[in-house]
Amino acid sequence: MTPGQIDAFLAEPRMAHFVTIGGDGRARVRPVWYLWRDGVFWFTTRTQARHTGRDLGSHPEVVMSIASEDRPYRAVITRGRPEILPKDEQLLLALSTRYGDEQARRWLPEALAQDDRVVLKLVPESVISWDYGTSD
Amino acid sequence: MTPGQIDAFLAEPRMAHFVTIGGDGRARVRPVWYLWRDGVFWFTTRTQARHTGRDLGSHPEVVMSIASEDRPYRAVITRGRPEILPKDEQLLLALSTRYGDEQARRWLPEALAQDDRVVLKLVPESVISWDYGTSD
Repeated sequence: MTPGQIDAFLAEPRMAHFVTIGGDGRARVRPVWYLWRDGVFWFTTRTQARHTGRDLGSHPEVVMSIASEDRPYRAVITRGRPEILPKDEQLLLALSTRYGDEQARRWLPEALAQDDRVVLKLVPESVISWDYGTSD
Repeated sequence: MTPGQIDAFLAEPRMAHFVTIGGDGRARVRPVWYLWRDGVFWFTTRTQARHTGRDLGSHPEVVMSIASEDRPYRAVITRGRPEILPKDEQLLLALSTRYGDEQARRWLPEALAQDDRVVLKLVPESVISWDYGTSD
């Protein structure tokens, strides 16, 4: 895909399948929300209450996969080391409202009240994108 | 989700985000087709021409994530060690036609002609399923 096609693909509210490696060296994967803006991915997690957040403490590198569920199959695979930042209300709002305005406004106060809630900023070290015709 | 709800969810032709660990110890993720039948996941890959297949040679354990893209958010996360089996025409047909009959029939002869084409049989060692209200 071209950079413009990648931007258009990532602008849709898809799930990012976010892969971390735990303290035991085993891979873990979770579907998470993302926001793609100016070449940067933004996520949110919790550093204590979520495996994803705890894993980043032992293994800072992540990979993730975002794919269409229907033909034409398209996918974006990214690798990098997210920076863990304090929670930011405007960022959490922009991220969560992509996935439904009303639900996000219910979710936000709860997220802001969580001591271990953080924002992840991922500047991709690599991006692979493609159109699938087949399976693997 | 109940076992019946998991079966219904997995019966839809979703993408499985399939995570392997490469010879360098780094995680890799690819969206792949799957077939869920009688408590077993089936996939296909290539042991030479695909990273996914090569990775299994060095690290036999995989994890994978299958999620809905829309509300209500649902996800199934599975861990296990796939058995690598010779390609089987009936299995490849059942797997690929889930994702479009016409395209599968074009894909199949090409897949059957690939020397390193294999079938993966994954009996889950663990299954986590849930309905998401929020992000992570």
